[in-house]
Amino acid sequence: MSGTSDTYLYEQIANDLSRAIHKGVYDVAQKLPSLRYIREQYEVSMATVIQAYQCLEQEGLIESRPKSGYFVIQGAKEPLDEPVVTQPKSSPTHVNVGHLAMSLINETRQLGMVKLGAAVPQPELLPLGSLSRIMAGIARRKNRALASYEQSQGNPELRKQIVHLMRESGVRCTADDIIITNGCLEALSLALRAVAKMGETIAIESPTYFGVLQVIESLGMKALEISTHASTGIDVQALTQALKARKMAACVLMPSFNNPLGSTMPEDNKQQVVALLAKYNVPLIEDDVYGALSYEPKRPKSAKAYDLQGNVLYCSSFSKTVAPGLRVGWILAGRYQEQIKYQKFLDNISTAIHPQLTLAEFLSKGGYRRCVRHSARIYRQRMEQLRRWVSDIFPQGTRITNPKGGFLLWVELPKTCDSMELYRQAMDKKIAITPGMLFSAQGQYKNHLRLSCGAVEGEQARKSIIMLAKLL
Amino acid sequence: MSGTSDTYLYEQIANDLSRAIHKGVYDVAQKLPSLRYIREQYEVSMATVIQAYQCLEQEGLIESRPKSGYFVIQGAKEPLDEPVVTQPKSSPTHVNVGHLAMSLINETRQLGMVKLGAAVPQPELLPLGSLSRIMAGIARRKNRALASYEQSQGNPELRKQIVHLMRESGVRCTADDIIITNGCLEALSLALRAVAKMGETIAIESPTYFGVLQVIESLGMKALEISTHASTGIDVQALTQALKARKMAACVLMPSFNNPLGSTMPEDNKQQVVALLAKYNVPLIEDDVYGALSYEPKRPKSAKAYDLQGNVLYCSSFSKTVAPGLRVGWILAGRYQEQIKYQKFLDNISTAIHPQLTLAEFLSKGGYRRCVRHSARIYRQRMEQLRRWVSDIFPQGTRITNPKGGFLLWVELPKTCDSMELYRQAMDKKIAITPGMLFSAQGQYKNHLRLSCGAVEGEQARKSIIMLAKLL
Repeated sequence: MSGTSDTYLYEQIANDLSRAIHKGVYDVAQKLPSLRYIREQYEVSMATVIQAYQCLEQEGLIESRPKSGYFVIQGAKEPLDEPVVTQPKSSPTHVNVGHLAMSLINETRQLGMVKLGAAVPQPELLPLGSLSRIMAGIARRKNRALASYEQSQGNPELRKQIVHLMRESGVRCTADDIIITNGCLEALSLALRAVAKMGETIAIESPTYFGVLQVIESLGMKALEISTHASTGIDVQALTQALKARKMAACVLMPSFNNPLGSTMPEDNKQQVVALLAKYNVPLIEDDVYGALSYEPKRPKSAKAYDLQGNVLYCSSFSKTVAPGLRVGWILAGRYQEQIKYQKFLDNISTAIHPQLTLAEFLSKGGYRRCVRHSARIYRQRMEQLRRWVSDIFPQGTRITNPKGGFLLWVELPKTCDSMELYRQAMDKKIAITPGMLFSAQGQYKNHLRLSCGAVEGEQARKSIIMLAKLL
Repeated sequence: MSGTSDTYLYEQIANDLSRAIHKGVYDVAQKLPSLRYIREQYEVSMATVIQAYQCLEQEGLIESRPKSGYFVIQGAKEPLDEPVVTQPKSSPTHVNVGHLAMSLINETRQLGMVKLGAAVPQPELLPLGSLSRIMAGIARRKNRALASYEQSQGNPELRKQIVHLMRESGVRCTADDIIITNGCLEALSLALRAVAKMGETIAIESPTYFGVLQVIESLGMKALEISTHASTGIDVQALTQALKARKMAACVLMPSFNNPLGSTMPEDNKQQVVALLAKYNVPLIEDDVYGALSYEPKRPKSAKAYDLQGNVLYCSSFSKTVAPGLRVGWILAGRYQEQIKYQKFLDNISTAIHPQLTLAEFLSKGGYRRCVRHSARIYRQRMEQLRRWVSDIFPQGTRITNPKGGFLLWVELPKTCDSMELYRQAMDKKIAITPGMLFSAQGQYKNHLRLSCGAVEGEQARKSIIMLAKLL
């Protein structure tokens, strides 16, 4: 890899060709344009073009035939439709998914399980070697760090480093705007407790990450599911109507690479929603935990980037990008900053110091961007494969989302399928998927499931998909 | 030090002599019994007797005169009275100390501050070298640990080790009865949220550690302060009457080496209170964070040791004994175990893995007991000194507690003194004390203060006490 700009270019080329193949511009068995032609078109080096073609080859879209060039082998088949826009009921619901979610999480922790539904990254894609060396060094050099309570707000060096990350999502802030948490779930829980009380209503996407549903449930709040589009996220119109219709205490969204949909709100929608919620004085809690894992060279802006009034509480973590075991996340809480800083102190005084120091050093050395870019490339290839296998093998009428980042995929099975039943049968075969009903407070999505290419790849993934199709 | 049994014996001898000196059995300038006499009385080695005398010498109670023996130089003076048994109002109160506590904590974090009120241990007394070596080794050997979410309940090895610690406090349990938390405050917060709801009443000692008051406040609960004795802890009679008079959701106690009193409930009282609360079906939340730092060779039993019905939620941590920066504590939640396990998952999925692995290895190597015994011996000496200086220098009418463990001391100044005013003046002199009113929901203890010999010793401590006396 020669440098940043070329890296982006080869991805751009691969993306363009991949899109053309999927649209049927190049048919199966058809020869692709020559390397020289592409080089001239894009005005890049030959190495860059070769890299783009190799990338498509790895994805299984094309093959190289000696002395003849590259040929399409896959993908000209009409892709599956997206799941329909969800139409949840328009009344707030008490949530009751917590214990089901918990028992499923525990079941799928068994050894030897193929984790085809888990929102966990692949260990091999994490910078474990660097982190370990850094942590060992810190343990030796900074043993006095253990002797005192770290600042409740979090280690200042780490917060400085996060300021740079925030800039990539379009947010300008200072280290003082950031509070370090034990992962993103703690950030979300702090945010919800700061802005809403027991009995109050929280607007959420439908489907929504079950962790958010569980926290809403445990706090005795009610969830109001809002109609959500499989690729563009929450329906702005539906949210507007809901805001007009009833009082809400907060809105929780995952605007980029949504869990479970994989959807990403267009920038305009983000801007509109932030303005809309500010107008109704409803705080927006933004979960951006997958935001950095963009398949495009540039990550999308966060909703927080459009926040003019401190009304957005931005939550994220390093659990999907660097290492879940570190348990380090952060929150920018806008006008709730002081309140949440205080609550963080009350919850557990501060986050452990060594994971914070380790991350601060890792980030300062510049390893983060390379690592995230690399992971995102791999996830993109796996996602392509996963989508193709589901398209090819799952029953007719199946619909799937088309994520532009992260590693989660949402599948809508034909209405007659029961994903809870599929889950149980698959568990017998040591394959763990995540059934759709975990993602709704209203008991919806009985024929949906979340798949993940975070921790499963290649032949193992393909065989698991074939097995699921058999069970269906 | 020749071994465990001898260690205990020399402490026993030193304790007995110290008590005799304080009672006036041996007057100032009087010669102590000969080493040989003591050796015969206790049937121990001469080395053990010498160690006991050296210990008293270090405490400044006696001095050795060449060829003449050991003579009393201090302490025969009548010791100060204990603070009176507290008489709080008998109605539940909304708590409102949180922000005062927080601003004081932040103020006292300034560099160069003599921390004479902070409940923090001395870095030099913590096993930082061992911990660092262990953590560096783990970072290198177990880098895969970072790649996944640790069990929400906590690392199994660490929980096994804690089973042994629990046995020393009289509790028989299994690793499955334990949940690892981010320190003791998280454990207390989990416990309170599990057993009580907004608006409900929590019975507490008066005075009570302000962290507990802050958590009660943040959860919108009410505090009912119960009359408490300076050396024997909560007044069982008063608690009984309160239980008869009104409905309570929980009772929070620190039965051993209480913060701030230093009081320890006699075993009988612990047993009675546990039975009493079980009879009224009121869960007991026990904070035992100082329990291991006993000045006697054997630590007192915990209240949990008398729990027959799973009604006691036992909370502790390694922050006062091993290292606050690790942020590792634990809870045994009795019949609330499943509920709290689930809530811990929702709060932050799990505690960071490296601090847990480090502690597990440290405990398994047996360094813990030696380290805690050593710290407790040092704290005992410092406490003796601190009490003597306060006795000698503070204004007439001052009363102080006489802790048998930990490093916290409670001082009752004459009624005309204002400890908040003293706090402010002392801050100008770079001395941080903790004013009494932080420890009451009713705004009591305006003429009280908490002192700590955790992080201050010797000449610095003495000079600070002299300065405080001047300000008074």
